[in-house]
Amino acid sequence: MSKKPLILVTNDDGITAPGLRKLIEIMNEIGDVVVVAPNTPQSAKGHAITINSTLHCNKIRSSSGPQTEYSCSGTPADCVKLGVNELLEKKPDLCVSGINHGSNSSINVIYSGTMSAAIEAGIEGIPSIGFSLLDYRWNANFEHTKKYIRKITINVLENDLPKNIVLNVNIPRFNKKGIKGIKICRQANAHWIEEFDKRINPMGQKYYWLTGRFVNEDRGKDTDEWALEKGYISIVPIQFDLTAHHYIKNLNSWSFEI
Amino acid sequence: MSKKPLILVTNDDGITAPGLRKLIEIMNEIGDVVVVAPNTPQSAKGHAITINSTLHCNKIRSSSGPQTEYSCSGTPADCVKLGVNELLEKKPDLCVSGINHGSNSSINVIYSGTMSAAIEAGIEGIPSIGFSLLDYRWNANFEHTKKYIRKITINVLENDLPKNIVLNVNIPRFNKKGIKGIKICRQANAHWIEEFDKRINPMGQKYYWLTGRFVNEDRGKDTDEWALEKGYISIVPIQFDLTAHHYIKNLNSWSFEI
Repeated sequence: MSKKPLILVTNDDGITAPGLRKLIEIMNEIGDVVVVAPNTPQSAKGHAITINSTLHCNKIRSSSGPQTEYSCSGTPADCVKLGVNELLEKKPDLCVSGINHGSNSSINVIYSGTMSAAIEAGIEGIPSIGFSLLDYRWNANFEHTKKYIRKITINVLENDLPKNIVLNVNIPRFNKKGIKGIKICRQANAHWIEEFDKRINPMGQKYYWLTGRFVNEDRGKDTDEWALEKGYISIVPIQFDLTAHHYIKNLNSWSFEI
Repeated sequence: MSKKPLILVTNDDGITAPGLRKLIEIMNEIGDVVVVAPNTPQSAKGHAITINSTLHCNKIRSSSGPQTEYSCSGTPADCVKLGVNELLEKKPDLCVSGINHGSNSSINVIYSGTMSAAIEAGIEGIPSIGFSLLDYRWNANFEHTKKYIRKITINVLENDLPKNIVLNVNIPRFNKKGIKGIKICRQANAHWIEEFDKRINPMGQKYYWLTGRFVNEDRGKDTDEWALEKGYISIVPIQFDLTAHHYIKNLNSWSFEI
């Protein structure tokens, strides 16, 4: 690109997260960066937006780098809406969300604040990518992600990603063998089996912690889970038209006569 | 069905909402009903789940009807997880969510707590329907929805809805002309244009209310928006495999060589 692209950066782990800092560092080498990120962690907030209370937003000074930064009270989707419609002077050329501390592969895309921010940008007509690392730790090593994130980002800027498609990128955690490469995948048909950890509080009342086991029964070799297990980065193209088009004909054969 | 089906009922407007009460009334005529609903309104919570704090849940006594009821502290998706995995003695035959006070047509499916509850049940392998009325008022008239909701519900119980499909049903608000019928539709390609209402609080600080205009540029006559505008109930089959399968081939032509 001849002119520097304007890049909106956000996440769901909050504005202080090391994953966000790494993403800002990578994007500063590619374009002009504006960060609009939540002021508190917003993991698993799905596509929540704030309609019954107010939002506030502060321009903050970061210790290093040329980026502009805003710290906001809302969800990841709120941050994108505020960024695009109120804070940025023009429509960004790209939105990137992450780098999430933890996987957003397969069904996790549904619960993910990181991906909801990327999808929100997609809905607003902005090319958009969510990046996640398969390492939940705050002090996770993000260094090995850099060259791949750069490559994927430049691909999106140079190719025409259709307006109704967003990329969900998951990256294996650091290990000495390194990354094997990049695979284009479909979302694995996997899910969580919930196990509620039931406890009694000091007042004698029952309460629960939501826990669970991730179960992948999808044996396909074209899924994100397969690629990640084998040491590849997975890219799944995601859409926000949720219609099961293939099932419309079948539903039309049901009788709805009253 | 020879045996009475076990039906899990939930919503996002909270356990006291008139729309939920109407849905319970309809379901009591079809099966054995267990209600697990949020103790506070959870509109626009998307597919949020509670992982960083605790959940609590109380069995409550309702003034009327044979149903069992639980009031829970979480999101709509939490309510389904708690209901299915902790509170109900066996897997429900059906989950219904709603009746939402307000539309969940087209892109609103993404933000909707009502639909996230239905989708969560779908992920858990339970046939599932979200019902919404195009009337935001607390005292909306739900009476005209009854025979249609009954018909759609019985259809889902009698036909084999595939495990990866959930129905998104939207119903026109009451008017004297009545409902024209039911249309099977695709999700309209529509979106919101945000307009932030910027204000100053008594301490002199800026804050925002998220507002917006709904814009439908989709001129198709097979969309939910079209059907609703013409006085029909819309049913969109929804899937939670978000993969844009048609775009995988194209992405494979990009160069990711490093």
